Parts: sequence; structure tokens; C-alpha cells
Amino acid sequence: MIKHALSVTREENFAEWYQTVIAEADMAEESGVRGCMVIRPWGYGIWERIQRLLDDRIRATGHENCYFPLFIPLSYFAKEAEHVEGFAKEMAVVTHHRLIGDGKGGLMPDPSAKLEEPLVVRPTSETIIGAAFARWIQSWRDLPVLTNQWANVVRWEMRTRMFLRTTEFLWQEGHTAHASAEEARQETLQMLEVYRALAEDCLAIPVVAGEKPENERFPGAVATYSIEAMMQDGKALQAATSHFLGTNFAQAQNIRFQNANGELELANTTSWGMTTRMIGAMIMVHGDDDGLCAPPRVAPWQVVIVPMLRDVPEDADVIAYCRELQQELSVLSVFGEPVRALLDMKAPKAAVKRWGWIKKGAPLVLEVGGRDVAGANVSVLRRDRLYRDDGKLASEVMPRLQFLDQATAMLESVQQGLFEQARRRMQAKVRRDVTDFAGLEAAFEEGNPGWVEVNWARPSGAELDAVAERLKALKLTLRNVAVAAPPAEGVCIFTGRPAVERILVARAY
Amino acid sequence: MIKHALSVTREENFAEWYQTVIAEADMAEESGVRGCMVIRPWGYGIWERIQRLLDDRIRATGHENCYFPLFIPLSYFAKEAEHVEGFAKEMAVVTHHRLIGDGKGGLMPDPSAKLEEPLVVRPTSETIIGAAFARWIQSWRDLPVLTNQWANVVRWEMRTRMFLRTTEFLWQEGHTAHASAEEARQETLQMLEVYRALAEDCLAIPVVAGEKPENERFPGAVATYSIEAMMQDGKALQAATSHFLGTNFAQAQNIRFQNANGELELANTTSWGMTTRMIGAMIMVHGDDDGLCAPPRVAPWQVVIVPMLRDVPEDADVIAYCRELQQELSVLSVFGEPVRALLDMKAPKAAVKRWGWIKKGAPLVLEVGGRDVAGANVSVLRRDRLYRDDGKLASEVMPRLQFLDQATAMLESVQQGLFEQARRRMQAKVRRDVTDFAGLEAAFEEGNPGWVEVNWARPSGAELDAVAERLKALKLTLRNVAVAAPPAEGVCIFTGRPAVERILVARAY
Repeated sequence: MIKHALSVTREENFAEWYQTVIAEADMAEESGVRGCMVIRPWGYGIWERIQRLLDDRIRATGHENCYFPLFIPLSYFAKEAEHVEGFAKEMAVVTHHRLIGDGKGGLMPDPSAKLEEPLVVRPTSETIIGAAFARWIQSWRDLPVLTNQWANVVRWEMRTRMFLRTTEFLWQEGHTAHASAEEARQETLQMLEVYRALAEDCLAIPVVAGEKPENERFPGAVATYSIEAMMQDGKALQAATSHFLGTNFAQAQNIRFQNANGELELANTTSWGMTTRMIGAMIMVHGDDDGLCAPPRVAPWQVVIVPMLRDVPEDADVIAYCRELQQELSVLSVFGEPVRALLDMKAPKAAVKRWGWIKKGAPLVLEVGGRDVAGANVSVLRRDRLYRDDGKLASEVMPRLQFLDQATAMLESVQQGLFEQARRRMQAKVRRDVTDFAGLEAAFEEGNPGWVEVNWARPSGAELDAVAERLKALKLTLRNVAVAAPPAEGVCIFTGRPAVERILVARAY
Repeated sequence: MIKHALSVTREENFAEWYQTVIAEADMAEESGVRGCMVIRPWGYGIWERIQRLLDDRIRATGHENCYFPLFIPLSYFAKEAEHVEGFAKEMAVVTHHRLIGDGKGGLMPDPSAKLEEPLVVRPTSETIIGAAFARWIQSWRDLPVLTNQWANVVRWEMRTRMFLRTTEFLWQEGHTAHASAEEARQETLQMLEVYRALAEDCLAIPVVAGEKPENERFPGAVATYSIEAMMQDGKALQAATSHFLGTNFAQAQNIRFQNANGELELANTTSWGMTTRMIGAMIMVHGDDDGLCAPPRVAPWQVVIVPMLRDVPEDADVIAYCRELQQELSVLSVFGEPVRALLDMKAPKAAVKRWGWIKKGAPLVLEVGGRDVAGANVSVLRRDRLYRDDGKLASEVMPRLQFLDQATAMLESVQQGLFEQARRRMQAKVRRDVTDFAGLEAAFEEGNPGWVEVNWARPSGAELDAVAERLKALKLTLRNVAVAAPPAEGVCIFTGRPAVERILVARAY
């Protein structure tokens, strides 16, 4: 039996395994501040890669980055609260702007520095960006306005879990305004497709891009779309959302423009976001009992070279050989960018470093010792094919030139392999044969069925709330209806009425 | 006389001119939130360019990016307050985590959701990063720790000015820990040099890199270094700082390591930062009465193509010609990157767009009309040489191929020209002939002398405070002592004792 690198396996305890991967891969840690984490270089490096790849796509679709204030005056939310029933109230509120001594050797907020109007730390920026749109937009010539912001936001969460649900998190939030509803709908779907492509092509995470049911819409949205990914425990995770807001927000924030006929119209707006949660999804899709497997496109280092040194004069030759290897790799190109190759010269022993990089999920780990130098070889370990059939590490010794020749193809193969593996796993865990509610109940009673796709009649209002309640009792939620799916045939398993589409039902993060 | 694009000149009112450039170049605007600005695409694009260029240099010197929480528990500051006399207290304090209705149609912080321990929005992250260092560092093998963070920070400023002093601002803060004081000092100076090179090579801003006097040190630092830039009104602006913290912070935060002999030692730490203030410096160094001149290395668009359209069928040819031009430019390379060329297809008329790009400071503006297409020409406007001697715009019609051949050299010439112009201006405004305090006083009474470099004996403590007070009465401050300057000869103009070095005295932002 293989002795894996982590102290707990996915099988034994998935939640604990998840935390262990994060700790052992040095991705993040608790900060001592409630619900906030410290994102360490390996975790943050992955986020920077995701940022770069998504930012390129956001620009390519004509959006421009801006930056809006962290603080939003309380009164801006009052406007929203009137307008939006589902208004979330768990927010960090700044009430003072100075600290003074408390007379007991500590500090306290200075009572004389109380703000006249409290400020809210942004939980999302619709209100403050909407106020800017109202200033910027006068005429149809000013439209569309296509903005995006990379920022930190804060939502006071009672139960937090690293990357998945933290009080402070990092994200991008796109906000756009358009002259017509049709154009705004197109924008919403375009950004959904950008998210799908990012998840699948860059993070190797297969997703279902679709429309959320009414009860799962962003408060105030006319339509909310999401990409849903399946974790290895079969649960769903919403990895990004795109909202068509119609004129609801424009109404509340007075975003109007003069059309070509000189008439005043409300703009149609959208918003869409992707967060550090995506890293949690990546861990739960690609991790194994030895740690993370980082898809090469987002791995901060794609190839890590570990020199095997013995504190002897010959070490200098090993180091020189490794340095050359690193340089030769760095001039190669993969996925349209230079290969990211690291020579790990840190103090610990080679075996410790090797296992460190396995747990971090570096796609390729090269070990180089004196014998390799003598034979002009390298010893190659592919993170996605770690063990041989006999349970030993599948290190392969190969000529240096052969490796250099194959390195980029190997990285492409790891990327593709991770995606295919995840896709097969997901396909095997989506049941489409359930035709009534009892069948749905039974499916989830049987253990871990993944997702179930069922017919439904798209109920709304109180009828939909009743469906959600029935599902909640089973710890289930409605996920989404795939875009561009064929129309459904048959009967809605919730209402008995003729079905109009098929919706995914799942346990979810 | 030339009729310039801005409603106010530098000569008439420098402060108002500065605000006008920001507004007319669409760089930023007031947000409606006290002291916080909205950074618009042109301003934020410049920041992203600065980020990219500095981040590359921060990585190249071995640092890794991390992310630490926005919120810092009050008690962390109490520790600092004990330790550091100059502890700044103007901070945003979060005291509640929920909003509720106030019964009058508005919202208020929920009294039942008061935090047990208030949280401070980070004004800088020494305390929370120090706490992480204390966890991460056990042995000499863990050193050095070289981290950097790109983040927003908040300092409650009473008087704010866009980019120069805002309540929330964006920055990077580097934090490092080392085994020896010598290594930490080297790190401090290395990052000072990185900042000097960024300012001079990328932003075309000549600076003096030097050590701040004791009274201007970061609270708790053993030595503080800065780069000082001269604005066009002769005032100094501190554009970045680098601090050697010795073991002061390590002591307060218990950052200790076991050395190679098994003994416990305190680490030596550093911190260093550069902020969105740099954009304010760039405006005040390179702006003119027609708006901003953006140095090509940081300009979001280096070449802007403005098609002159007349709502006729031939417009299609003009657009096709412009598109080809844009593609031909985009495959060229300058400063080691692809040329950033924009085809401006927005609605306004060509003349309006041309002046818009002049005010934004795009380095090269190309205008293309039907006649240019017919003659295979382009009309080129260099932002740094806007007018002919007769006061007309210095547009130059040249063959398209000739322009493509010269485009990158022109961009390099604009970059170099801006730097040389600023350097000459600065050199002309540093007086070195002042030998006593009366002379210093006289120099600044004469109007706008720029800076004065004088002998001083490096007084400290109460003696230095007295010097600072005398200067303050003249609205003057001590700036810095250039690193690696030759030792001074003569007498300190403040104390009459033998001088040990020469220090810059100036009015400052």
C-alpha cells in the first residue's frame, strides 16, 4: 500500500483533507484575525496567475480597469435596502477615525472621533460604482461603459473556511452599463463564457455554465448565471457569477441617458465576479492524497529543479548543470508564455524539498545528482502520475536533451490530463435518470451520487420557495440550468406540470 | 500667444493646475466618500504599468508576493504604541459587523453586533506581518524571509489631495527578515536603488536617493531612506521610502531564530513602500499647460490612432488603413515589450479626440484622414513637442513606412527627452552656495529657489528638533542626505560645528 504524503486522505475525511492540503502546500494559514487568512506565496502566486489570465480576457472583451473606494457611506446602502428585499446586512462598519489610550495601557476608539455617517467596508460595489455611472453617463454616446475592478471585499461570515468563505476575500467585479436590454444580456452571457473558458482552459476545471433559478438570483438581478464545478466529494461549487440587472439598479441610482432621439432612458446594467474561492475549487478538483496538483497554466512554477547536494566539491558541477537546465527551460514557451522554471537552492535536503514540491503540486519536479550530471541525464517526476504500479515513485531518468525536447509537451499533457480526469469524474457522477421526487430523495440517500439533473417547470414565487424548502430538508439546492441546452420533455419532478428545462440539483459549498 | 488646452496654467496657480490636469486627463475624481478617490481607467492604467514594472524588479531581487488581512486587531497596535513614541493614531476603526434599520427608513450599526475587540483598517502592515514572521521563522535556515504585498491602506487624513494624500491609497509594502544587521542594511539599500531606477528609468523622474534625518525616520526605524523628486514648483516630494528596522520590530513581535550555533537571536527586519502618490509626482514633473505628458514606459497607450471620419463611404478605407497601422505597430517592440497602440473608434469628432489624448498625455497621436490614406501617409503629433515656433500644432505628415520605421525610436526619444528635461530643470534649481542660516532664509525669501543643499553636522535629539523648528517657521523641511556622497567640508549651517555631510532643504508636499 502506498504511504501518501498527507496525514489524512480524501476518503477518510474530505473537509480535514482540504485544510491539510492548504497547510502542507503552504498556500494559506489562519491570520489571528477572525475569518481572515494570510495567503502565502504559493497560494498567492496561483491567484496572480489566475488574475493575469482572466485580466487578459477581460481586456480583450473591451473592459477597462478602474479603482473605486473601499468605504461606502451608509446612506448608499439605505437606498439599496429600500430597493432590494434580499439585502445582506452582515458587513464591517467603520464608526471612528482615531485611536486613543484607554487609560489601562491599551487603546480604544476615540469617542471624540466618531464619524457623522458610518462607513461600510464594501461587500460589493454596485452602489458606489452606480453613483459614478450616474455622473459619467449622459448621452447614448457615453455607452456602453465597460469597467472592471480587482479589489478586496468584506462580508461578515459566521462560519469561515479558507478560500471558500472568508470574511475578507479578493475578487474582480465587472460593472457595465448599456443602451439596451439586449446588449446588456449579451454582455452577461459573454462574461459567463469568459468564466467558463477560464475555468476549463486555464484551471482545468470542467463546469456547467447556466442560469440560476429565481430564488438563487443576486438580489435585484433580472437573471443570474453561474459556472458550477463538481468537487471530488460530489458537491457543487459556484465558481463565478454573471448578473443581468436590467434597469433595477439604474432606477435606484438614477443612471439615465439621452437616446439618439433626445429622450431620457434608463441604462441597463450588468455585474459579474470571480473570487479567491476559485482556488478552493481548484484544490478540491485536482488535489489528491499527496497534496495539490496545480494545473501548469496557473502553477507559479511549472518545473522545479532540485539539486541533490552532498557537501562535496562536486556539488559545484551539479549546481552549474542545474542552472544551465533552468536557463534552457526558461527560453522555451508553453501556453503562449515562457516556461516558469525554478532552481530550488534552499537549505533542506533534496528528499524534503522533493516532497515539499509534490505537496505544492508543481507539475514537473526534476532531481539532479552527480550521476545525472555524469550521464547528461535528469530524473523527471510528473505530479499527475506520481506512482508506478508497484507503489514506488514514478521518477523517470532520461537524457537531458530528450527532456528539453519534451518538456513543453509534458506540461501540455499534464494540463490536458487534469482536465480530462476531472471531466470523466464529473460525467460519471451526474445522474440523468431520476424522474420523480422520490427518486431524487433515494439518489442522495444512496450515499454520494454527485449531481442529479431533473426536469422542471421553472416554478417561481411561493411555489419555487416551497421547492427550495423541500430540497433544503434534504440538504440539497438547485444549481443551474445549462445555457443553450435542448428543451426538456416530460414532467417537472417538483410540480407535476410539463417540464420546460432541466436543472441540476446537488449538495453544495 | 498659444492658447493652451487647460483653463489654468502652472504659472497662474500650480495647485489648481494640478487638479485640472487630473480632471481633464480623466485620471481620477472625487468619489463622494471623504478623502477617497475614484481612479479612472487612464489613471489606473498608469498605476498598473508602474505595478508591473516594479513588481518585475521586486521579483528579480528574490521577493515573493503574499497577501495579509485588511483588518488588524486593536491589541496589535497597543503593542506598537508601547514601543513606538511616534505612533500615528488616525485610523479607520471597525466596531460593528451588522447593519439594521434605524426605524426611520435608514440604516444604523446594529448595537447587538458590536465587536468585542475593534478592528483597525491597516494603515501599514508591520504588526500583522511581524506576527506571521514570528510563526514562520524558527531557524537560520528559514532566513531571509523576503515578502511583498500589493494592497490598499487607510490613513485618516484631515486634508486630502488626489494621488498625493488620500484616506485610502494603493501601494506595495515589502517586509523582510534577515539573520544579520548587515544583510538587512544591504536589503534596505538594494530596494532604495530599485525605487531610484523605477523613478528614473520608467517614470523619467530624476530623484535624489538618500538617508532621511533622524526626525523624519519611520517610527521605530534605525534608518530611513527615501527618493526625493522635484516638482515643477520647486517643492520636494518623497516618492518612496525604505526602512532598516534593526531588531526593534523583532523585539516587539518576538521574531527570533536559532543561529547555526544553536543560540536564539533576534532577526533584523526591513520594510519599504511605494504608493499611488508616485502618479502625483509624475503629473507635477511632466505635466504642462496642455495636460499630462505620460512617459511612454508607463503610458497605457503609447500610440493613439485617431481616424478622421466624415460620414462618407470612403470612411471604410480610412478605418481599414488605421486598423492595419495599429496591427503593424503592435508587432513592434520597445522597452522590451510590444508597442501599445490604440485605434480610437469612439463617437466624438477627431479634433475633440485629438485634444483629449493630448490632455491625457499619450506620447504619440496619429491622425489619419482620406488624404493620408491616398498618399500612404500619417500625421504624427509628439506630445513632448506639441507646438511649432509659430504656435501652431507641430503635426508632421510623413510616409507611413517611415513612421513605422521610426516609431520605437520616437518613443524612446520621448522617454529620454522627458527625463533630460526634468533633470536639467532640477539641476538648475538646486543651490549649493548657501553657507549660513541667513543665506538659507534669504534663498527662500527670493521666491522659488527649488532646493538648497547645505553642510550639516548631523545633529540629533533635542538639537535636531530645534533645527526642525527653525526650518518649520520658514515652511522648510530637511529632505535627505544623498547616499554615497563625498564627505562634507566646512561648517554646519545650523550648529556651527564641523559638517559631516550635506543635506537637502526644501519646501515639500
